[in-house]
Amino acid sequence: MMVLVTYDVNTENSEGRKRLRQVAKACVNKGQRVQNSVFECLLDPTEFAIFKDEIEKLIDPEKDSLRYYFLGKNWKKRVEHVGAKETYDPEETMVI
Amino acid sequence: MMVLVTYDVNTENSEGRKRLRQVAKACVNKGQRVQNSVFECLLDPTEFAIFKDEIEKLIDPEKDSLRYYFLGKNWKKRVEHVGAKETYDPEETMVI
Repeated sequence: MMVLVTYDVNTENSEGRKRLRQVAKACVNKGQRVQNSVFECLLDPTEFAIFKDEIEKLIDPEKDSLRYYFLGKNWKKRVEHVGAKETYDPEETMVI
Repeated sequence: MMVLVTYDVNTENSEGRKRLRQVAKACVNKGQRVQNSVFECLLDPTEFAIFKDEIEKLIDPEKDSLRYYFLGKNWKKRVEHVGAKETYDPEETMVI
């Protein structure tokens, strides 16, 4: 199943910035980063359940937001992209 | 139709920050801001075409990324939210 995962992590303090790094790392391991905080994750239901549990333990539910969009079988028809394909990752070191 | 709009605007310079403000403003006028750069827009096809044209003129396609996810009629079943910033249902009448 294709699940779009989007997040907003409150980075007002160092704990928030740590949560952001942790959530991003968990998402990078499970999906395709299509934008900075938007991931397309092709997972089976068991993998998704484990992933969901993992990232929901990382966020602060009072401050951070996670959204899942279940795009279904015909997910490719539901997506349209415009503009730059590659996104920068402010958390990672750039290698030139 | 429910269209999820997500964007990454490159804000390395002042032109980028200006584009970000413009794109955000255009999206706020057309949808519900569910996360910082994620909007759920309930529009008819004509409204969507006008909106799409508007925001695609604002971005720099070499630097910025826009993605549209067409969530279909059963969009409510496709969405799950966890954490902060719960959203309202744009198809229900607001009672104040």
